[in-house]
Amino acid sequence: MTVAVPRYRDPAAPVPERVRDLLGRMTLAEKVGQLNQRMYGWHAYERTPDGHRLTDAFRAEVAAFDGMGALYGLQRADAWSGVGFGEGLDARDGALTAAAVQRHVVDGTRLGIPVLLVEEMPHGHQALDGTVLPVNLAAGATWDPELYADAVAGAAAELRARGAHVALVSALDLVRDPRWGRSEECFAEDPYLAARMTEALVAGARRAGVAVVLKHFAGQGATVGGRNSAATELGHRELHEIHLAAARAGVAAGAAGVMAAYNEFDGVPCVANRYLLTGLLREEWGFDGVVMADGTAIDRLVRLTGDPVSAAAMALDAGCDLSLWDDCFPRLGEAVDRGLVSGRALDAAVARVLTLKFRLGLFERPVPEAGPGPGAARELGVLGERIARASVTLLVHEGGALPLSRAARRIAVLGPNADSVAQQIGDYTAPQRPGDGVTVLEGIRAAAGPDTEVVCARGCELVGDDVSRVAEAARLAAGADVAVLVLGGSSARTPDTAFEANGAAVTVAGAPSGMTCGEGVDLADLSLPPAQRALLAAVSATGTPVVVVLVQGRPHALPEFEAPVRAVLSAWYPGPQGGRAVAQVLFGDAEPRGRLPVSVPRSAAHLPVFYHGKDHRYRGYVDQRATPRYAFGHGLSYTSVEYGAPRLSRTRVSVDAPRLTCRVAVRNTGARPADETVQLYVRRLSGGATWPRVRELRGFARLRLAPGERADAVFEVDAETLASVGRDLRLVVEPGAVELETGPASDRTRGVRLEITDSESNET
Amino acid sequence: MTVAVPRYRDPAAPVPERVRDLLGRMTLAEKVGQLNQRMYGWHAYERTPDGHRLTDAFRAEVAAFDGMGALYGLQRADAWSGVGFGEGLDARDGALTAAAVQRHVVDGTRLGIPVLLVEEMPHGHQALDGTVLPVNLAAGATWDPELYADAVAGAAAELRARGAHVALVSALDLVRDPRWGRSEECFAEDPYLAARMTEALVAGARRAGVAVVLKHFAGQGATVGGRNSAATELGHRELHEIHLAAARAGVAAGAAGVMAAYNEFDGVPCVANRYLLTGLLREEWGFDGVVMADGTAIDRLVRLTGDPVSAAAMALDAGCDLSLWDDCFPRLGEAVDRGLVSGRALDAAVARVLTLKFRLGLFERPVPEAGPGPGAARELGVLGERIARASVTLLVHEGGALPLSRAARRIAVLGPNADSVAQQIGDYTAPQRPGDGVTVLEGIRAAAGPDTEVVCARGCELVGDDVSRVAEAARLAAGADVAVLVLGGSSARTPDTAFEANGAAVTVAGAPSGMTCGEGVDLADLSLPPAQRALLAAVSATGTPVVVVLVQGRPHALPEFEAPVRAVLSAWYPGPQGGRAVAQVLFGDAEPRGRLPVSVPRSAAHLPVFYHGKDHRYRGYVDQRATPRYAFGHGLSYTSVEYGAPRLSRTRVSVDAPRLTCRVAVRNTGARPADETVQLYVRRLSGGATWPRVRELRGFARLRLAPGERADAVFEVDAETLASVGRDLRLVVEPGAVELETGPASDRTRGVRLEITDSESNET
Repeated sequence: MTVAVPRYRDPAAPVPERVRDLLGRMTLAEKVGQLNQRMYGWHAYERTPDGHRLTDAFRAEVAAFDGMGALYGLQRADAWSGVGFGEGLDARDGALTAAAVQRHVVDGTRLGIPVLLVEEMPHGHQALDGTVLPVNLAAGATWDPELYADAVAGAAAELRARGAHVALVSALDLVRDPRWGRSEECFAEDPYLAARMTEALVAGARRAGVAVVLKHFAGQGATVGGRNSAATELGHRELHEIHLAAARAGVAAGAAGVMAAYNEFDGVPCVANRYLLTGLLREEWGFDGVVMADGTAIDRLVRLTGDPVSAAAMALDAGCDLSLWDDCFPRLGEAVDRGLVSGRALDAAVARVLTLKFRLGLFERPVPEAGPGPGAARELGVLGERIARASVTLLVHEGGALPLSRAARRIAVLGPNADSVAQQIGDYTAPQRPGDGVTVLEGIRAAAGPDTEVVCARGCELVGDDVSRVAEAARLAAGADVAVLVLGGSSARTPDTAFEANGAAVTVAGAPSGMTCGEGVDLADLSLPPAQRALLAAVSATGTPVVVVLVQGRPHALPEFEAPVRAVLSAWYPGPQGGRAVAQVLFGDAEPRGRLPVSVPRSAAHLPVFYHGKDHRYRGYVDQRATPRYAFGHGLSYTSVEYGAPRLSRTRVSVDAPRLTCRVAVRNTGARPADETVQLYVRRLSGGATWPRVRELRGFARLRLAPGERADAVFEVDAETLASVGRDLRLVVEPGAVELETGPASDRTRGVRLEITDSESNET
Repeated sequence: MTVAVPRYRDPAAPVPERVRDLLGRMTLAEKVGQLNQRMYGWHAYERTPDGHRLTDAFRAEVAAFDGMGALYGLQRADAWSGVGFGEGLDARDGALTAAAVQRHVVDGTRLGIPVLLVEEMPHGHQALDGTVLPVNLAAGATWDPELYADAVAGAAAELRARGAHVALVSALDLVRDPRWGRSEECFAEDPYLAARMTEALVAGARRAGVAVVLKHFAGQGATVGGRNSAATELGHRELHEIHLAAARAGVAAGAAGVMAAYNEFDGVPCVANRYLLTGLLREEWGFDGVVMADGTAIDRLVRLTGDPVSAAAMALDAGCDLSLWDDCFPRLGEAVDRGLVSGRALDAAVARVLTLKFRLGLFERPVPEAGPGPGAARELGVLGERIARASVTLLVHEGGALPLSRAARRIAVLGPNADSVAQQIGDYTAPQRPGDGVTVLEGIRAAAGPDTEVVCARGCELVGDDVSRVAEAARLAAGADVAVLVLGGSSARTPDTAFEANGAAVTVAGAPSGMTCGEGVDLADLSLPPAQRALLAAVSATGTPVVVVLVQGRPHALPEFEAPVRAVLSAWYPGPQGGRAVAQVLFGDAEPRGRLPVSVPRSAAHLPVFYHGKDHRYRGYVDQRATPRYAFGHGLSYTSVEYGAPRLSRTRVSVDAPRLTCRVAVRNTGARPADETVQLYVRRLSGGATWPRVRELRGFARLRLAPGERADAVFEVDAETLASVGRDLRLVVEPGAVELETGPASDRTRGVRLEITDSESNET
């Protein structure tokens, strides 16, 4: 006698059939179990004398629904979760515990549906011994999607080797207001650059067999006042023109999921926004992955609906499939019973979760077969360092101050960010092993010449106005050939940081805290804090040449730097090895090639500062210019480079087949190698459904030129390059005239006119 | 033989019939002539040795279309128009010239259609000898629509007496971002307060037979960064919840017109926005008045359409009837000929313009029969002074520093706003006759006791950091019993101010200028300028008690005031007689009763600061609180007042008939009379289509209480009070729970819960 294998267990059957078969076997409770994710993963295990074991709470949670759709953050470690090296899971224990979880779910439930193990991978897997990469804003500053994709693939492989399947990554938010503490999690202020990085993210993760959930959909970067998870005032057009590009690109690249954001769009919370989650995402874009709600976001709907069951129904109806930490989705069964949700809608959501599991091969291999090869972490660390190096953005450079000379007698490395690994790795990071990492000070020490003495002082704290240690730092500067002043911000959480239910830091305005950035840590005044400014002034007053290095998760508002400040670099949060990367650039072992992914403001008073506002030819405030201190795309090198004017293969195209080539000659006129990011912008002159923006990035290309070398950057211009959001909110090539502009930065472009005619017949 | 009088000339015929008849007789050119308003009115006349005569340019303009729909600003006088007392029209000459214009148009054209004479009446008729009232923001601070309506009626009577018919008045814009230079033209940041003032405006003007065009429709207060006529990012819900209330109220009150704004809404410029101008305004609200485009706003559409004729068609199709200063609408005939606009659409616009003329009785009485009675200007001046007095808002008051004593030995009146009429009257004002008006210094001199010496010094300029005269002022303060420090801003234009084509001042960021406010004068940093802060510090350092009076057109960001600052008052721009009003309040001849119509920020870095943001329970920035320095509705008095908790006549109502009474007991516990503005707010607890706002003003009532007296403020709560914007963007009473809150300010309320049930049957 043969026992028939259920159809859903047949790996050869098409996924839709397997899903249908499995769905047909499930009870309502089992279905609801697939859709909620209410347990914090770190509550699923506990420490034993010789390892870890699963908790009763976990077993109870599995039993409650006879299954588990997804488990969030089993391996998460940080100050919020309270998980550290004492109790947490390192790489080996993580893999073992993941396997135990999976076995329990598969073996201990009627249908044996594997659980999705979902982990944070904002910039590396947020787990003990997870390799930390530079933050997304640093990745954005590289303008190098290929490099980023490689690093993501490595991070995803780490995560997969530890038994997890789904990575949550911020990718869709834009830095529209740098007061927002989560600016560091964004790739850019610009939709095009963010879209290219998002594609790279999805592609990299797919290479490692990891499903990515893109955070956050949609418009979260537009929250009012840069205030975390507050309202937006966004309308449809602004959403389409600015905030959807990265999501659209990520979906097209095959993202497995998107996360519905906390904020509202046009007054409707994203998790309840059927227009966004169903109309746009599924019906218009054809997305067939899962929509996960942000943590507790569905609970917030109770304020509108009056009760959690209706809130669950509202979110499911809108298009949420999988929830996070809320008390609503676990009650979806009641919603079905009360007729608030149709069984069909519930099944559709369950089907999407199951489809993801089938696609990931979980029914065949719920636990990965082998851990990462030896050296994988080291390789990933090297990739992280490459990103860090490539992200260093040279904002100011006077008179060949850099590279630093290895013949220097003495270098003073000063400032509150000079010697802290914690302060250079950003938010959403696990505890680091003491002694791991390279600070800027350590990097400089290691890179300096054998006869160079490196002296150091903190000078002041990151925040506040205590200047008691400034004089000591200035003394060291006075006695040095050059002072490297490492200023900026920090997202380092401490054990006494308080947190919201969703992991955002709780900050009290005006309370002393070293945190100036990260989730829940928004900043009103974007200037460097008073003590840092005092340190800069005192060090400058010595007359010693000063190189300012900014370690930061957002663009701080910067003053006009004056002598003796000879160079200013933004190193963003460069990750644990970032100090070495910074030193390599400072000493010229690597060329600075980062470009600003955000505009640097003069002050918080003239926000917003993004480069592509609507072109109203605004003259500026009467007391301040409205232009940024440093423009989007800006970034100097140690050599000099000349750009020609763009040349078009044709100056007139039709809307039907707008294809042409745009070339620009770039020449390295200096004595060091050039590593240029040539930028292509479109600037609408006439036509279009709406006021044009000042200019819009629509391409970039990397050119490496030896001293004296000259080459063309070549852009294939097509409908995608020229598309704008038409009257009906769809992307379309609109007739009229545009200027195609090329150059090294958004404020140093040269343009040439292109006519876009209505019909093929006019094309020449 | 009798000559038949054309039907349109029959006063007894219904207006629609007269319009139809007249339309049927008009040529295309004559129709187009009714719709454009391209001439600057001050180009229509010129000075002669013994008066004024009409110019050839005017005659040519009338001849071009054999008629003239409307003439803008015949009597406008200001730095932009270049019209002053030398060449301009005083009251008598204005009336004579208006009559001459009218006679020329009526007698010199085939059909004899009278011309609409359109004038600016932002706060009084902007003409020589026009009585200047306090700016709208001051009117808003009175929370006294009745008083404002009386003043508007007076101003409108002045305007009508000078032969004009239509008054352009800013009313619809809200102070959403106080960086905007036009903040002074807004009544408030709040839609409810603005709506009540707008109703008063329309009613007052109607009493005088003047048609009001309400500026600007819609959402202009939401322009990005407070930048004049820039983009908005507004979506539909934000528009409906915040920006439409004043327009809706004004239309319901019978406004004759609205002006389509420069800004865009959801990406579509207002003048091209059919949804706004036709869908909402005409079809949903039933508005049957005229839509006038803002000056040159239609020209800006050429950027979208590529040519002026198409731009004209786009604006007409959207719903603009009458244009202003542009080169597009004069070419509407071509648009008809090219088939871009239907004759029917053109006729509809012409019909609306003609309807207004018939309604105003222009065919019967194109020129008013008599000028204003003697004493009318004086009476209006008195009303202006009453507004000024009622608008003075006491922000800080420590230890009974006020009223000032008439027994004082010496009072020092200091500061750059202490002694300038020009600086206290605001933007959109005509030149004043030298010697007219009362400055704060003059007001204090006149009001002080007979033995009080009043000394004065400017101390510093309004802007910049020149502190060379600060010491002299501090010396005077040191020798005085009290120092009255008059700080703030100014919208005074000078003969060398440069202007845009639409009259906005051209400012160059950082260039020295005394202007800190007004159209085109946006400010990034809202703090008082450095020299003013230095003056405050130096005067405070003397230890002499300080009273700060702010003369300002926007809420400047204020520091936390410390001893010896004992009182801070905002006098806004109180108008030419404002100095007397301020002095009356300072000396206690009048009680301070103004309430903040805007939130006062701590700095520009924490904008937006309006009180009714979405209620996300935001904890604040890590470095600054997100709450205002002084809250919307705040305003102290010289007495003390106690508020009880609100009492409801029922605590449960149904959505169908939500009627109840809300009472709150208010007691004057001090020794001086109280003049309280009791405020009613609604705060949604649950239910509703969208996140609730923190609270929303929905009523206010004035209570005058003698010392020791106690009375109830009574609010009749109904559907209008409780309505919110539903899912379909219509106002509706949504079930759920709200709190009805009462109190003296938005940050000092007490609330009581009201259940709003779904159906009548649940009502108790």
